[in-house]
Amino acid sequence: MTDYVLSEKAGKNLNVLRERRSLVHSITNYVVMNYTANALLACGASPVMAHAQEEVEEMVSLAGALVLNIGTLTPYWVESMLKAGKKANEKNIPVILDPVGSGATTLRTASARRLIDELDINVIRGNASEVLSLAREGSQTKGVDSIHSVDQARDAALILARELNSVLAITGKVDLVTDGKTVYRVHNGHELMGLVTGTGCTATVITAAFLAVDDEPLEAAATGLAYFGLAGELAAEQAKTPGSYQIALLDALYSIDSNRLKKGAKITSG
Amino acid sequence: MTDYVLSEKAGKNLNVLRERRSLVHSITNYVVMNYTANALLACGASPVMAHAQEEVEEMVSLAGALVLNIGTLTPYWVESMLKAGKKANEKNIPVILDPVGSGATTLRTASARRLIDELDINVIRGNASEVLSLAREGSQTKGVDSIHSVDQARDAALILARELNSVLAITGKVDLVTDGKTVYRVHNGHELMGLVTGTGCTATVITAAFLAVDDEPLEAAATGLAYFGLAGELAAEQAKTPGSYQIALLDALYSIDSNRLKKGAKITSG
Amino acid sequence: MTDYVLSEKAGKNLNVLRERRSLVHSITNYVVMNYTANALLACGASPVMAHAQEEVEEMVSLAGALVLNIGTLTPYWVESMLKAGKKANEKNIPVILDPVGSGATTLRTASARRLIDELDINVIRGNASEVLSLAREGSQTKGVDSIHSVDQARDAALILARELNSVLAITGKVDLVTDGKTVYRVHNGHELMGLVTGTGCTATVITAAFLAVDDEPLEAAATGLAYFGLAGELAAEQAKTPGSYQIALLDALYSIDSNRLKKGAKITSG
Repeated sequence: MTDYVLSEKAGKNLNVLRERRSLVHSITNYVVMNYTANALLACGASPVMAHAQEEVEEMVSLAGALVLNIGTLTPYWVESMLKAGKKANEKNIPVILDPVGSGATTLRTASARRLIDELDINVIRGNASEVLSLAREGSQTKGVDSIHSVDQARDAALILARELNSVLAITGKVDLVTDGKTVYRVHNGHELMGLVTGTGCTATVITAAFLAVDDEPLEAAATGLAYFGLAGELAAEQAKTPGSYQIALLDALYSIDSNRLKKGAKITSG
Repeated sequence: MTDYVLSEKAGKNLNVLRERRSLVHSITNYVVMNYTANALLACGASPVMAHAQEEVEEMVSLAGALVLNIGTLTPYWVESMLKAGKKANEKNIPVILDPVGSGATTLRTASARRLIDELDINVIRGNASEVLSLAREGSQTKGVDSIHSVDQARDAALILARELNSVLAITGKVDLVTDGKTVYRVHNGHELMGLVTGTGCTATVITAAFLAVDDEPLEAAATGLAYFGLAGELAAEQAKTPGSYQIALLDALYSIDSNRLKKGAKITSG
Repeated sequence: MTDYVLSEKAGKNLNVLRERRSLVHSITNYVVMNYTANALLACGASPVMAHAQEEVEEMVSLAGALVLNIGTLTPYWVESMLKAGKKANEKNIPVILDPVGSGATTLRTASARRLIDELDINVIRGNASEVLSLAREGSQTKGVDSIHSVDQARDAALILARELNSVLAITGKVDLVTDGKTVYRVHNGHELMGLVTGTGCTATVITAAFLAVDDEPLEAAATGLAYFGLAGELAAEQAKTPGSYQIALLDALYSIDSNRLKKGAKITSG
């Protein structure tokens, strides 16, 4: 059953981030930089990208949230993420990790785990296989070969969230968000989102914008993903092909107001 | 009162750059590379991006103008900018600096100032706070805490343009362009431009394209900004949401011809 | 006369890559990463970008084809291309080179030639001047100063394809594809494609997707270019200005099915 308290909070979060024009600092991959920056502007937030080791600490200090995305990582960029992340932790600025491609190569898996080990990460946003790849040796989830459905993912996610001490936001047909105790499912979204590059990364930056205005990472993630998923649904009313859809998605992020979000958010618990 | 001589020149500059298909070499940030390249093509110019220290001198030698943009700088990229800038100076190829985020971090402010100290920069294009951050110790503008209006900016800009020995193009609701003696204001533009990432950077590359065909940097900047602002106005007749607007802006750059620009440019002096 | 066997094959290739969702690994330039990733998704393929020397060998091992594009090269990226290319060769994964700007700077020309010397490149896709710049000292093509037409290009291309031991796909008003023995011409395409940045690079990644499903590089290139050119034609029915056209081109890639491609492909031999 739809969680109306969270629907209400989704609308409130959107209003607050638009009032504050929250600054989201991303250290992210080259492919999505432009699109995620435009998505943040369309939401009403402010994007900034900076990765030089000489400036990431200063830059993140100005921000409301920090995004770490390993989509086109090199060791240099991972060091920059660590520097920025440590400063963010010191200043209680929320940090979200997008472990793009973790599990596909050793560098990605090892880098994602190192970020988790050395930093306090508030939210990890990825697809099921990326998130499952983060389990340490000896994890109770290690028996699980692969996860094919949100239902299978639920138990592993609960365990892993506790082991990693982070909220997990596993996106898919239905998104699953958990802190290891409570589980929310977000039923918003549209399959056309999968035809635009970087929609996963965009889910991450929008969640970051919600983290900047909501002290509860679990609720920030659930409400942020509901907002983005709703935008995906409305965009599908405007466009059925991926070029036009990519543009309609930005338009929808901009056009949704807090009332529309309160009505449209489909978050359930359990 | 509208400066009709400059309106006329705006149209002429646009025609000439389209005939020549002026090559603009950008050493710029990752976020805007694609959009600014498309904007230059839509104008009728030719974009090229190259930042390797082994090739920037050769590449800039082929260009009609050089863009230096520090939006995602690292020390390596700043060295590349210096190499390209010195070669451009040697060959009398105009150079424009976009000091993205100068004032926000030490690296950005110091890098922007170093580029200004070591190179002859023909035009500096930024918002008011970025441009004001460029003042050296002992600058007459140092008493100014912050600039909240174009009127306040005027006096500081006149002083700073003389101190930095460069044309300043300070964009905002009204753009202010000055070489330290003459001041032009460009009244074209639309607030939706602020909802698309990299419109400031795009103003810079279009100014670069105008610099490639106009020996007077002051007039190149005023006419280039009028053209871009007019495109922003026409795009707003086509689209009211940021995704569609971003596309309409490229379309407008392409569709404006010299007559339309002569009629639509709103440049005043004083 | 239209080669109906190849038209048929074009449709079949498109179906197969959509069934397999072929993974194309690109080590490419910053400007086009987002657009080419979206183009691959619109085709039905899967894009991945990775350039760190620690992971390129693992990543390419997962891929159906490898794209090497030197549009914003540095020596580091060229080394990554060599590592990935050697692994691809070892695993019989096809490799396509896009020598962006070869001939314009020493670094580009030398890097493109080094990639060709050290790797087995299945297809080289570029414009006439880029491809001609790849000729080694002593090449029979060295007497040719410049190539101004597809007809002039034909003889040089036949020689060069044999010298470089690679299929050449020289795109222009009419595309010319040859392995040094057989020559195909692809008559699909539209002049508006030249107003969108990275359409050459997009031709390359689409050819890569076709290489992933077709063991004959010559036919993969001809059919891939026919598909992309047809998308360019259909997009021109939807949009006449470059912003909208760029989006319509992605939409057309998605909308074309194998029957439409079989009917629309215009490939001739000779």
